[in-house]
Amino acid sequence: MVDVKPEIRSGLEGVYFMESAICKVDGANGRLYYYGYPIEELASKSNFEEVSYLLMNGKLPTRSELESFRERMRDARYIPDEVANLIIELSGRSTPMHILSTAMDMIGALKGERSESNSTYIDIISELSSVVAAIGSISAKKGYIPPKDSLGHIENFLYMLSGEIPDKESVEIMDKMFILHAEHSSNASTFSAIVTASTLSDIYSSIVSAINTLKGPLHGGADEMALRMLADLRGKNIPKYVDDTIASGGRIMGFGHRVYKSYDPRATIIKGILESVQSRASEEVRELTKTVLSLEGVMTDKLSSKGIWPNVDLFTGPVYRYLGIPPDLFTPIFAASRAPGWCSHIQEYWKSNRLLRPTVFYTGEVGKKYIEMDKR
Amino acid sequence: MVDVKPEIRSGLEGVYFMESAICKVDGANGRLYYYGYPIEELASKSNFEEVSYLLMNGKLPTRSELESFRERMRDARYIPDEVANLIIELSGRSTPMHILSTAMDMIGALKGERSESNSTYIDIISELSSVVAAIGSISAKKGYIPPKDSLGHIENFLYMLSGEIPDKESVEIMDKMFILHAEHSSNASTFSAIVTASTLSDIYSSIVSAINTLKGPLHGGADEMALRMLADLRGKNIPKYVDDTIASGGRIMGFGHRVYKSYDPRATIIKGILESVQSRASEEVRELTKTVLSLEGVMTDKLSSKGIWPNVDLFTGPVYRYLGIPPDLFTPIFAASRAPGWCSHIQEYWKSNRLLRPTVFYTGEVGKKYIEMDKR
Repeated sequence: MVDVKPEIRSGLEGVYFMESAICKVDGANGRLYYYGYPIEELASKSNFEEVSYLLMNGKLPTRSELESFRERMRDARYIPDEVANLIIELSGRSTPMHILSTAMDMIGALKGERSESNSTYIDIISELSSVVAAIGSISAKKGYIPPKDSLGHIENFLYMLSGEIPDKESVEIMDKMFILHAEHSSNASTFSAIVTASTLSDIYSSIVSAINTLKGPLHGGADEMALRMLADLRGKNIPKYVDDTIASGGRIMGFGHRVYKSYDPRATIIKGILESVQSRASEEVRELTKTVLSLEGVMTDKLSSKGIWPNVDLFTGPVYRYLGIPPDLFTPIFAASRAPGWCSHIQEYWKSNRLLRPTVFYTGEVGKKYIEMDKR
Repeated sequence: MVDVKPEIRSGLEGVYFMESAICKVDGANGRLYYYGYPIEELASKSNFEEVSYLLMNGKLPTRSELESFRERMRDARYIPDEVANLIIELSGRSTPMHILSTAMDMIGALKGERSESNSTYIDIISELSSVVAAIGSISAKKGYIPPKDSLGHIENFLYMLSGEIPDKESVEIMDKMFILHAEHSSNASTFSAIVTASTLSDIYSSIVSAINTLKGPLHGGADEMALRMLADLRGKNIPKYVDDTIASGGRIMGFGHRVYKSYDPRATIIKGILESVQSRASEEVRELTKTVLSLEGVMTDKLSSKGIWPNVDLFTGPVYRYLGIPPDLFTPIFAASRAPGWCSHIQEYWKSNRLLRPTVFYTGEVGKKYIEMDKR
C-alpha cells in the first residue's frame, strides 16, 4: 500500500502552529520587539528584571509591581543543598550545559508535581542564573558562593560567579546582554519547551527540554564556536579563510540566520558595547575585536547581498571575554538569559493548550512475514 | 503593521515534517507495523531484544547478530554508583518520572559529549530499564539491586525490580508489553526527542526531552490514570458514569486516539493477555477486569460509531497489576519500553538533519514607546 505523498515541511520551516503576542522578529527589516517594545529601547532604558516582568505579564511594571517581582526573584535565588552538591560532584567531569540540565531537572524533581503559577516561573528565572553561576564558581575552584540579598539579579549573578561585588560597568553590560538574549520567538529551544508543555508535563520538565535543545551546536553552542573561530583567526589571512571556507561549502560562525535577512539588531547593539570598551580592554579582547571587525568587513562585502549578515553570536564572545567569562559558560549564560522567554511561551501556550504531534510520511513496506531465526 | 493571517496548524496535526521508514500506524484499519512487521506477529513470535535490534537496524537479526546485540545490552545494564545514589536520595521525595529524567540526564552528563554511535543507543535502551527497576526497588525499600549477567533483558528488569528471579509467565507477559510499547511513530515524546536532536544536541539530552514530554498526563500518564479510574469504578453504575462524564464534556480514560479511528491493535493483544490470566489472578485484578470489560461494552455501544474505541492504555494497568507493578511505575515502564523507538527516530532524523523550528503568527503591536517608571 503506497499512499499519495503529501507535502513534507522540512524543519517545519514556515509552518505556523499558533498565534502569539510575545515577540515579533521582523527579519526583513532587522527589527526585534518584546511585547511591542523595540529591543533598542529595552536594551538602553530597561533592565533584565523589568524585561522578565514584561515577558511574564505583557506590560511594563509599576514601581511597586517591579519591587515585589524583584523580591520574589531574590527569594528564589537559593539553590537546594542537594543541587549544589550535585554540581560539585559533576564539576570537571562533564560540560557546564550537561551539569545545568541535570541540576534543573533535579530542582524540578525536588519540587515535585506540575505547577502553573506565576511564582514557579519566577523561581525558574532566578534559579537558572544561580545554577549557572554556581557551575562557574565551582569550576573556577571558588566553591559554591551563596547569593547576597542586597544585590539585584545581574549584580548577584556576577557576584555568585566571581565571589566579588561587580563594578558598575560590568553590571550594565551583562544586564544588556541578558536583555538581548531574553526572548526570540519560537526558536528551537523555546519550541522544545512548548512541545514538552503540550502534554501537560510540568514547567521544570519543559525548561529542561529547552536547555537540552539549546545545548546543540546548531543553536546555543554558536557563540562559543564563533569565539573559538575568532581566536584561531588571530594574525591569519581573513579574506583567504573566508574564501576557502565558502569554497569548501563550510559556514562562517556568527553570520546568517533563518529569520534575519538583514543585520541582526542584537548584533548592532553588542558591536556597540564591544567598541565602547576598547580603551579599557585586555590585549586578548582588543585582538579579538580587530579580528571580528575585519571579518565583518570581508563577509559584508562578499555575502550581504545574499542576505547573510552578522548575527547575535558574532560579537557576544568578545564582550563576554571582556567581562572575564570563560567560553564554556557562554551557552549556560544564554540559557540563564533566555529563561523568561521560555517561561513566557509556556504560559501563553497553556492558555489554549493542544498536544503537539506532527506526522511523518511512511515510506516502508507493510505486512512483512516474520521469519523464524533458523531461516534468516 | 498587521500581516495577512496565515493558516495556523494547531497541534501541528496532519503536518508532515519528514519521511520515515520505521513505523506505520494505519489508524483507519487498526493496524500497526514496525519496519513492515505487523505488531501481532512481533508480539506473538519475537522478543524485546530482537524488536530493539529491528528498530535500530531495520531488519531482523541473524542468530549471531542477536547474540552480540544481547551481549552489548547486558554490558550496558550497570548504573553508575553516583546515579544509584541520586535515585536513593530522591526516592520518596519525588515522582518516579522526575527521578527517571534526572537520573538519565546525569548518566548523560557523566558520559559527556555528543555520540552518534549505535553503541550509545544500546546503552540507553539498557540503562533506561535498569534505572526504572532501581527506582521501583528502592521505592519498595529493597535498595538498589545490581543486574544479573545470566538473565535476558526482560527477566533482568523484573529481577532488578523485585530481587527475585521472575517466573516464565511474568517474563512472557512483560516481554509482550515491552514490544507493544516499543514504538509508535511521531508521537509527542518521540517528536520531542527529534526536536532536541535537530540542534545536534546529544542522544542522552534528546532522550531526556522525550522522558520529560512523556511525563504529561495527555501522553504517558494515561495508563496510570485509566487504572485509577477503573479502581474507582468498582461496584459503581458504569452506564451512569459514562453518561455523566460525556454530558459534562469530560473524557473517559483509555478510549479514543488521534490516529486510531478503530480498535487499537495493541489493546486487542493486551485484552487477550488479561483474559488469559483470570484463573490465576488476584481478586483485585479480577475485579478490575470485570470493570474494564463492562466499561468497554458500554463505551463501544455508545461511541464506536464515532470512531472512539479502546486504546493501548485501557487494559495495560490491570495487566501490570497482575504482575504486581505499582501504578506510579506504569509511565516509567512505558519509557523503558519506548527507548528503542526514541533511539530509532533520532538515528533516522540525523541521516538528513534539519533544525526544527516552526513559526508563530505575531498578533501584538510593534513600535511601542518605552515609558519611564514615574510616568506609568
